[in-house]
Amino acid sequence: NDPDALAVATELGLGDTYAPSAAEAVAGADMVVSCVPVGAVEEIGRAIAPALKPGAIVTDVGSVKGAVIDAFRRTLPGSARFVPGHPIAGSERSGPHAGFASLFRGRWAILTPTPRTDPDALAVVSAMWHSFGSNVELMEVSRHDLVLAITSHLPHLIAYNLVRTASDMETVTEAEVIKFSAGGFRDFTRLAASDPTMWRDVFLNNREAVLDALGRFSEDLALLQRAIRWSEGDQLFDVFERTREIRMEIVDAGQDTAVPNFGRPAETGNGQT
Amino acid sequence: NDPDALAVATELGLGDTYAPSAAEAVAGADMVVSCVPVGAVEEIGRAIAPALKPGAIVTDVGSVKGAVIDAFRRTLPGSARFVPGHPIAGSERSGPHAGFASLFRGRWAILTPTPRTDPDALAVVSAMWHSFGSNVELMEVSRHDLVLAITSHLPHLIAYNLVRTASDMETVTEAEVIKFSAGGFRDFTRLAASDPTMWRDVFLNNREAVLDALGRFSEDLALLQRAIRWSEGDQLFDVFERTREIRMEIVDAGQDTAVPNFGRPAETGNGQT
Repeated sequence: NDPDALAVATELGLGDTYAPSAAEAVAGADMVVSCVPVGAVEEIGRAIAPALKPGAIVTDVGSVKGAVIDAFRRTLPGSARFVPGHPIAGSERSGPHAGFASLFRGRWAILTPTPRTDPDALAVVSAMWHSFGSNVELMEVSRHDLVLAITSHLPHLIAYNLVRTASDMETVTEAEVIKFSAGGFRDFTRLAASDPTMWRDVFLNNREAVLDALGRFSEDLALLQRAIRWSEGDQLFDVFERTREIRMEIVDAGQDTAVPNFGRPAETGNGQT
Repeated sequence: NDPDALAVATELGLGDTYAPSAAEAVAGADMVVSCVPVGAVEEIGRAIAPALKPGAIVTDVGSVKGAVIDAFRRTLPGSARFVPGHPIAGSERSGPHAGFASLFRGRWAILTPTPRTDPDALAVVSAMWHSFGSNVELMEVSRHDLVLAITSHLPHLIAYNLVRTASDMETVTEAEVIKFSAGGFRDFTRLAASDPTMWRDVFLNNREAVLDALGRFSEDLALLQRAIRWSEGDQLFDVFERTREIRMEIVDAGQDTAVPNFGRPAETGNGQT
């Protein structure tokens, strides 16, 4: 519904046809992929419900699954075959310019079928993700929302918060923060540049799991704070040492770069001798 | 003092000569660059003091400057000319394999001269960093330690803590955390793979500034937590929106990649339309 975005997509030749409304876009379609902020799903469901072909497959890419399933259940007709989905891929960028052909290659696409999910529709959506080069993982709905709370939602919240704290320091200028960001701050700014509407909706729609993960994070942080205050070097060292291996496992699993296969040499471990 | 590291450096041809002790390494040198964890500076100062040529320039690369200046003052002879330095460059990797020719190119090297610093020695150290392709910034000692607390030390602490919290979740397996790390968690693991000794020493030696920055971070995080609990979407949106611009400024300043000029295409903004 953004005319500018539509114009750019048309210019880039991203689609075969374009429609100014969701209802017009889905009319006659065999499969519909809903890619909207989680908080807009209910509205989209209401908008497309009357226009959906009977038996049409509907799937989505939302980062929260429980709330999306509820919203589509409330709004889609019984004949629509909904398959909840979530590709674990993307960058902080959004809009039609942000896509690239290898975005999903080597990434995981999680599908969270429920007892009501049509098995044929599940197979079709699964085949779509495979055709993009993704690996498909089936997961129980509430488990997805728990796993993503710690692997995606909490990291984004922390990144947003750190960038905010740094911008608000009255003793350090924003110019200094930017100039010397290569010291570590930079790594947080990518996530903190993500779409604010999308992320607001994620936190509002996965509240319990995010608050649980956040509570654990804050407790652990309080321990580190105390160890610094009381010069307990051994405690700091133990925590810092345990976290190294995870990086190497992520590199080994090929999940370490935001933009894979883009001509950057692969990292080969941490070079420790 | 690690024979394995020395063997690798010799094999790679990194130096013209190699020495098994710090005292032997500095004997007869015009300039000495100390690159050890901040907590080892005093010991290194004691070890090299008797072997230093009168008038030798000593500089360092430590991430804390106040504590390093104190440690060298206590140990170096009066004839040594110390120039406190800190290049804002590097990766999570360490050891002789971790270097590369463009490491310092386009990065900032901060020098924090004191009233006792010899101006000629300062000019020589400054020229060294310029010759590596760095920009040199002069900064007051305590200001450096404040600025780095927020741009580097706090981000590392937060990254270590998040990776630790994720590893300790009993409801989510470590395999899941790794598998789905592309959702955001991955961005934290690079910093959390940094050398534990180096970082323990940073926190113990820049305690006040780190605790101040950490206190602010925790207060801000508590507000976000409350906004999630009470579904205050506008508050979340406002914070998330303000943090986007900083990323673009970092990209514009050319400080956005850990490994510059390595064949990876530059990011060109966030692609928003």
